[in-house]
Amino acid sequence: MIYDYIVVGAGLFGAVFAREAKDAGKSVLVLEKRDHVGGNCYTYEFEDSGITVPLYGPHIFHTDSLEIWNYLHRFTEFNRYQHRVLTTHGNRVYALPINLGTINAFYGVNLKPGEVGAFIQRKIPVNPQPMNFEEKAISLIGPDLYDAFFKGYSTKQWNTDPIKLPAELITRLPVRQSYYDSYYDDRYQGMPLGGYTPIFDGLLKGIPVELKTDFIDAKDHWFARCRKVVYTGPVDEYFDCCHGRLRWGSVRFETESLGVSDYQGTSVMNFADPDVPHTRIVEPKHFYRERRFTEERTVIIREYSYFDPLTPYYPVRLADDLELLAKYQALALGEPNVIFGGRLAEYKYYDMDDIIGEALRAARKAGH
Amino acid sequence: MIYDYIVVGAGLFGAVFAREAKDAGKSVLVLEKRDHVGGNCYTYEFEDSGITVPLYGPHIFHTDSLEIWNYLHRFTEFNRYQHRVLTTHGNRVYALPINLGTINAFYGVNLKPGEVGAFIQRKIPVNPQPMNFEEKAISLIGPDLYDAFFKGYSTKQWNTDPIKLPAELITRLPVRQSYYDSYYDDRYQGMPLGGYTPIFDGLLKGIPVELKTDFIDAKDHWFARCRKVVYTGPVDEYFDCCHGRLRWGSVRFETESLGVSDYQGTSVMNFADPDVPHTRIVEPKHFYRERRFTEERTVIIREYSYFDPLTPYYPVRLADDLELLAKYQALALGEPNVIFGGRLAEYKYYDMDDIIGEALRAARKAGH
Repeated sequence: MIYDYIVVGAGLFGAVFAREAKDAGKSVLVLEKRDHVGGNCYTYEFEDSGITVPLYGPHIFHTDSLEIWNYLHRFTEFNRYQHRVLTTHGNRVYALPINLGTINAFYGVNLKPGEVGAFIQRKIPVNPQPMNFEEKAISLIGPDLYDAFFKGYSTKQWNTDPIKLPAELITRLPVRQSYYDSYYDDRYQGMPLGGYTPIFDGLLKGIPVELKTDFIDAKDHWFARCRKVVYTGPVDEYFDCCHGRLRWGSVRFETESLGVSDYQGTSVMNFADPDVPHTRIVEPKHFYRERRFTEERTVIIREYSYFDPLTPYYPVRLADDLELLAKYQALALGEPNVIFGGRLAEYKYYDMDDIIGEALRAARKAGH
Repeated sequence: MIYDYIVVGAGLFGAVFAREAKDAGKSVLVLEKRDHVGGNCYTYEFEDSGITVPLYGPHIFHTDSLEIWNYLHRFTEFNRYQHRVLTTHGNRVYALPINLGTINAFYGVNLKPGEVGAFIQRKIPVNPQPMNFEEKAISLIGPDLYDAFFKGYSTKQWNTDPIKLPAELITRLPVRQSYYDSYYDDRYQGMPLGGYTPIFDGLLKGIPVELKTDFIDAKDHWFARCRKVVYTGPVDEYFDCCHGRLRWGSVRFETESLGVSDYQGTSVMNFADPDVPHTRIVEPKHFYRERRFTEERTVIIREYSYFDPLTPYYPVRLADDLELLAKYQALALGEPNVIFGGRLAEYKYYDMDDIIGEALRAARKAGH
């Protein structure tokens, strides 16, 4: 049979597009390289512990769009989790993003919201032309806060001394003038009650999915079996990396089960200092307080940053990457029967709600 | 006309009972001493500022009951506010209730959840029989945390040195072993989008309400006009305080408008030290972040504790009060045509959700 669509990749873009096409009466086949759907949102239950664990790092759903919030509610309910991030620096714990509480605790002061701006400004040395990441960061928040909260963390995140990173990586470093330390400021926020995987089961219900199937290996075969391809893999790989490889930041996860009810007391603890090799520890129990766990058991995941074009997580998007991207985008224009969409195919950082919005738009544009 | 019910007091118990009776086809008249409905939940908009201000102290709705959560949704939508309380001590700001973050910041340490219990235990002096409030508190959390966070605050709250207060006032002082500092742990929480007053407008829709009407002044007159009375005022006043007056804690509010966008950076800031005369400052803007205020204007309310039987807020409930209460409860049994309900009539601290539950139960018991 000839499918209306073959969707390459069962992540958020692919699954939403597939759902919309299917609901519009189209025939759809989904191909997925991995042995599961859900892309990097994939979650699983850790060894009958009742703890929902993300395999590729935690995702916290947040959006300002009631339309997208309602869309996902077709597939799941959400709890009322509000994300907060803490960071350990010099054996003390602080709230992120930097807010009035962080500043007061760090400097041992008791500023009011109206005093924060001037206080920070006085810390910033004059530097009309910051030449690298470090200088740029210092020009925004001063050397104290930079050294404490950004220098070590960025070094780990980029595997590079920040003075070797371009200034363009930073446009702004928000400093909140209130004690509000909920990480996101969106109207709607929460974790899907049963994790993310059930959302994908719902999105892909009634749609054939071929797992462990690499589209790139047999492009011609699949093109012969459909009218259009929706490609959500890395754009460079679609074109056999003929112009070279785009750079991606990756994350290595070290998952461990511990015999304590609560290891770190919070869902995400960053480690700002360079002597701790992991960037952060995630303890997924804390995403689901409503489950009221009582067992003396928890799961923690240490995250380590590295760079690997074959394990794409975060597009690096430095100037030479964007030049390379432009070349692939030019090639993509020559593929009228392919819709390129999602984080990997667009080489662009997207939040989940934005990806859903993009997929819905792409489906509408395709007439569904 | 003879009403099925005259409901005395348009607070939460009275309004919910009135709604239920009305919906069951009964005729209801509501009497309210004040010039507005809503009891101590009453809110108003401060001078066209868009800021919803509570007249009698802030109320944050929280419940574990889906039934009660759904019940209120008949009358209002809720935002996703999660209550947090901060406290100022010695010119530093800490999170309440005492949690891992408070302890780590206060002691300058970096404990893990599993270490908190033993750490606190080591601080507690041996005292097998605490004789007063202070000794009891110290026996639970040690002298350091008591002095910092309870001594001064309790002195202000009770207008008394805590060594003169009975130990019975404290049964436990929770210390959270995680960084979780959302004040309530209930499944459902939020602020009604337009404040509390619209809830009462909804509850009392179609029900006649006589404001500025003191039932006690003309009891016989009202009894002659109804089959049953639902009395939600202070139980001692119903019986002309014939056995003496119950003790109540009261709060004086000092409301001020300021020309800054954000005064204190959070909704509720306690002041733990005795040199600050107010117990806390409430900045109601922070209850409604979704309104995304931009004006350089805020409202703050300083709260002062005092004791006044004529302005009942919190039942004191010391041993002699409870003895007195028992006498009034005995008298109440001799009033078969009166339903006594709510915080004032039961002389009992109730959260809003519990009051709604009580009122619904009372209505069901009455056959509605």
